[in-house]
Amino acid sequence: MTVKLVVLYTQPDDTTAFDEHYLGVHGPLVEQVPGLVRWESAGFAAAADGGELTYHRMAELYFADQAALQQALGTDEGKATGRDYGQIAPPGSRMFIAAVDD
Amino acid sequence: MTVKLVVLYTQPDDTTAFDEHYLGVHGPLVEQVPGLVRWESAGFAAAADGGELTYHRMAELYFADQAALQQALGTDEGKATGRDYGQIAPPGSRMFIAAVDD
Repeated sequence: MTVKLVVLYTQPDDTTAFDEHYLGVHGPLVEQVPGLVRWESAGFAAAADGGELTYHRMAELYFADQAALQQALGTDEGKATGRDYGQIAPPGSRMFIAAVDD
Repeated sequence: MTVKLVVLYTQPDDTTAFDEHYLGVHGPLVEQVPGLVRWESAGFAAAADGGELTYHRMAELYFADQAALQQALGTDEGKATGRDYGQIAPPGSRMFIAAVDD
């Protein structure tokens, strides 16, 4: 069963600086994570429910299964990506593991 | 630019009943939405950051562009799907529009 790491970034103080680091530094780190099947990032544009635009960006990293995801997080590349997440993620940002429906 | 409607469902009181309705009733409604390029749903399994498992499920509905998404929401099928969302979404559930990075 395909699983994905779902990352939700709250609004940064400096959106331009965040996006530059995200696209220029963080993205290339993600792409080196072993076992990554594919990944997708997106920028939130609006709250469709009329509520607060809580999140600025999201990312989804897809792996073949739960074991592959766990193994990836433990590699040097996975740890480097995690450290960079810790550097850039604004307070309240979240990271979840989700099982993709077939 | 591909855009997606990102739906985050908080934890329902009755997970089994929610999932039955979600997969048996809501999913088929989503699939009838005009202009939908593809969609993906997933169930959250764990919080990878050690925090609260805020959300139970997520869904992403992909459209060719912002205009196609807005048009879809205004169709009978889009409205029916929105009404069903209103019926099942636990308090605190969210719905956002996001632009997918190329």
